[in-house]
Amino acid sequence: MRIVDIRELSVPISRYADPSVPSGGLTTSMVAVITDVARDGKPVVGYGFASIGRFAQGGLIRERFAPRLLAARDIDVMDEAGTNLDPFRAWKVMMTGEKPGGHGERCVAIGALDMALWDAAAKIAHLPLFRLLADRTAGPEVTSPTVSVYAGGGYYYPTDDVALLSDEVRRLSDLGYRRAKIKIGGALLAQDLKRIDAAARLLDGPKHLAVDAIYSYTPASSIEAADALAPLGLWWFEDICDPLDFETLAAVARRYPAPIAAGEALFSTCVYRKFDSA
Amino acid sequence: MRIVDIRELSVPISRYADPSVPSGGLTTSMVAVITDVARDGKPVVGYGFASIGRFAQGGLIRERFAPRLLAARDIDVMDEAGTNLDPFRAWKVMMTGEKPGGHGERCVAIGALDMALWDAAAKIAHLPLFRLLADRTAGPEVTSPTVSVYAGGGYYYPTDDVALLSDEVRRLSDLGYRRAKIKIGGALLAQDLKRIDAAARLLDGPKHLAVDAIYSYTPASSIEAADALAPLGLWWFEDICDPLDFETLAAVARRYPAPIAAGEALFSTCVYRKFDSA
Repeated sequence: MRIVDIRELSVPISRYADPSVPSGGLTTSMVAVITDVARDGKPVVGYGFASIGRFAQGGLIRERFAPRLLAARDIDVMDEAGTNLDPFRAWKVMMTGEKPGGHGERCVAIGALDMALWDAAAKIAHLPLFRLLADRTAGPEVTSPTVSVYAGGGYYYPTDDVALLSDEVRRLSDLGYRRAKIKIGGALLAQDLKRIDAAARLLDGPKHLAVDAIYSYTPASSIEAADALAPLGLWWFEDICDPLDFETLAAVARRYPAPIAAGEALFSTCVYRKFDSA
Repeated sequence: MRIVDIRELSVPISRYADPSVPSGGLTTSMVAVITDVARDGKPVVGYGFASIGRFAQGGLIRERFAPRLLAARDIDVMDEAGTNLDPFRAWKVMMTGEKPGGHGERCVAIGALDMALWDAAAKIAHLPLFRLLADRTAGPEVTSPTVSVYAGGGYYYPTDDVALLSDEVRRLSDLGYRRAKIKIGGALLAQDLKRIDAAARLLDGPKHLAVDAIYSYTPASSIEAADALAPLGLWWFEDICDPLDFETLAAVARRYPAPIAAGEALFSTCVYRKFDSA
């Protein structure tokens, strides 16, 4: 089997009033990895989608990562049996010649392609993606037939914010979601507490609700928000302040008892396998 | 004054045998920022050049950063007097709408434009760039009329490596350079010690010579190299191992007495000013 073609498209993306990223001009990349494996007379195609918030990465995809995948020998992107893609090996092909460290934009570009490769591999394997991921990473001890999910959303609405947010969370609940994450930090704290209260009532209380401030708090307002949210016992409190302001994050962590989430904008914190030199 | 046009070009770049980045296919970006300020009947143009080793960034420059500069109001990229570019304000324009953190590729793209903006600003100000930078950053206490420089180079030659390296360092010395930096880590340690010896003899000894391993050593060979280089008292030892392998860097720092250099591939280590929300 082999990768026949890779298509890439930059599309505009909008998400109402975002505390950190203006919608105007925001784009993202969609990619399709087309294989020569046929299912019901059609080629298996894997689809990938880049970040919401970090812009399309068409330049990097077109100039470096897609050409490397297409130029690779089939054997370098396939599994041992030669019957399916191996996304880990494909990742190594994409990173060939890349300087170590400095994983900023390129992980958005590679991430979109990686998502498409895994999607294609799961379709070829006739497995749901979670099962294939478990098989390839955690090993056979993963036996659960289900995966926990939550609904992400809850951006600010330009008008009737709390009412429309309530409608949104009600729709999510009707779809079967028992947990959700909404945005805060783009309004006054009193208003955000109303949003949180409205959303938590439609789920099974604040323990089923996470909040994401998308880096909008200053050092002082981070503490103020943490103190206001602490009594609620939220599921988690995410991306509180500037992601590189470790001092404020540490100060919040010391006084805020429920879980906090951070780190998706850090790219210098883990050791990865040394790439082979060419 | 205003920015009239921004041109961008991806060019191939080669540097012999590099321990970490193959020359084949390596590219870099060149940019020109064209102003409406005239000197000797010609427009002042600032030139910038991206990284050697991190590929051209034409996509990011064309899709985000150059359009933002060209779409900005003149007042948002000018100094208070309105007579010159203000690269700090231009940087803020380029980063408008960018999500905080994750400074990987985009700092290569912005860095090339930033270099061109500073080049243009220095030309417009009739000042050497070091003087303008000192005025805009360190303040009037910087009175030295000169700046220390060193020559970077000393990549591996495919044949006659030590002889050709010696020729190169001799040329640098003839040009007036008293200090230089050469590459190591792409050959056996014994061969690298020959390169170091040859280069140091043509300068005023190892104290005038820095070495750059471009991340090529493993944890074990990092220690071996550090122990071999320690007695030499080199100027500094740079980019020893994987840039995110902090453990090995710390182990080298504990046993290697002369200066080491690291960190150019880290993008999550400093707090920067919060960008204004749009």
